[in-house]
Amino acid sequence: MNESTRRMPADSLVVRDTVRPADTEAVRELVLATGFFSAEEVGIAAELVAERLQRGPASGYEFLFAERDGRLVAYSCFGRIPCTLVSWDLYWIAVHPDAQGTGLGRRLLQETERRVLSLGGQALYAETSGRAQYVPTRAFYTSCGYGTAAVLEDFYAPGDAKHVFVKKLG
Amino acid sequence: MNESTRRMPADSLVVRDTVRPADTEAVRELVLATGFFSAEEVGIAAELVAERLQRGPASGYEFLFAERDGRLVAYSCFGRIPCTLVSWDLYWIAVHPDAQGTGLGRRLLQETERRVLSLGGQALYAETSGRAQYVPTRAFYTSCGYGTAAVLEDFYAPGDAKHVFVKKLG
Repeated sequence: MNESTRRMPADSLVVRDTVRPADTEAVRELVLATGFFSAEEVGIAAELVAERLQRGPASGYEFLFAERDGRLVAYSCFGRIPCTLVSWDLYWIAVHPDAQGTGLGRRLLQETERRVLSLGGQALYAETSGRAQYVPTRAFYTSCGYGTAAVLEDFYAPGDAKHVFVKKLG
Repeated sequence: MNESTRRMPADSLVVRDTVRPADTEAVRELVLATGFFSAEEVGIAAELVAERLQRGPASGYEFLFAERDGRLVAYSCFGRIPCTLVSWDLYWIAVHPDAQGTGLGRRLLQETERRVLSLGGQALYAETSGRAQYVPTRAFYTSCGYGTAAVLEDFYAPGDAKHVFVKKLG
């Protein structure tokens, strides 16, 4: 087993960290399928993959892609926060609706934390909305050991706060 | 008087919002001269100017350059925070050491707030370090009407917190 392809136990899930040209569209479709993100957010998710393909590690974006039978079912995008020493940001984590409720998000997040730690990160930040739609998202982070570091009222839009979660790693 | 060149009253200061190729180096020199920023930060400051030159308004970066006798003495860089409706970020504000202590930073910040408001922003965020070196910076934001929205411990480095300031505009 090498670092770039890791077979999860007890099922056909494969997690890889290499980025391929087809991932740009696959990520766009996956993020769109969740129904959770705005058009701008969907565009940015795909753009980060494209930027990684173009600039390599210098882009600052790392990825984990979870595939089942060759099909992308979840992914995470993360990177060291510029101008910080050991703080990393979980820019994206998304699980296809077909694969939700199976613990896949939790497993992918744990795999992401291991990867961040191995790359020198000591804290992983995740941001999400304070809207009712995101109650499960916030509960997800809490149950994965994240604490609320800040709540910025009216951040995304009037009445739509940003919740900043953080987990110390290692 | 047009929008792109605004002469400040009672002195020879000119503030412009157009970005010129020479600004990339001028910003690098200005930011470096302050002695306040790391090599990575200096690089990023210049990179944002280059990105604006290359991509135009689509870059998401707006600028105000304050010049005296054709020489850059201060600048600000700001933009709408992606995926937010009316939240803007003050990415950079820097005043050349020769021109510090003259109220220039305050005037440039006020001009920046007016510009953000005119572009549809309703809140301006500014982030700075919790280190002792930044006591004057934090006092500057407080005296300009900014409140502390969050303090993220160990954000920049172990023992070096990020203070997030915000001011509601309009």
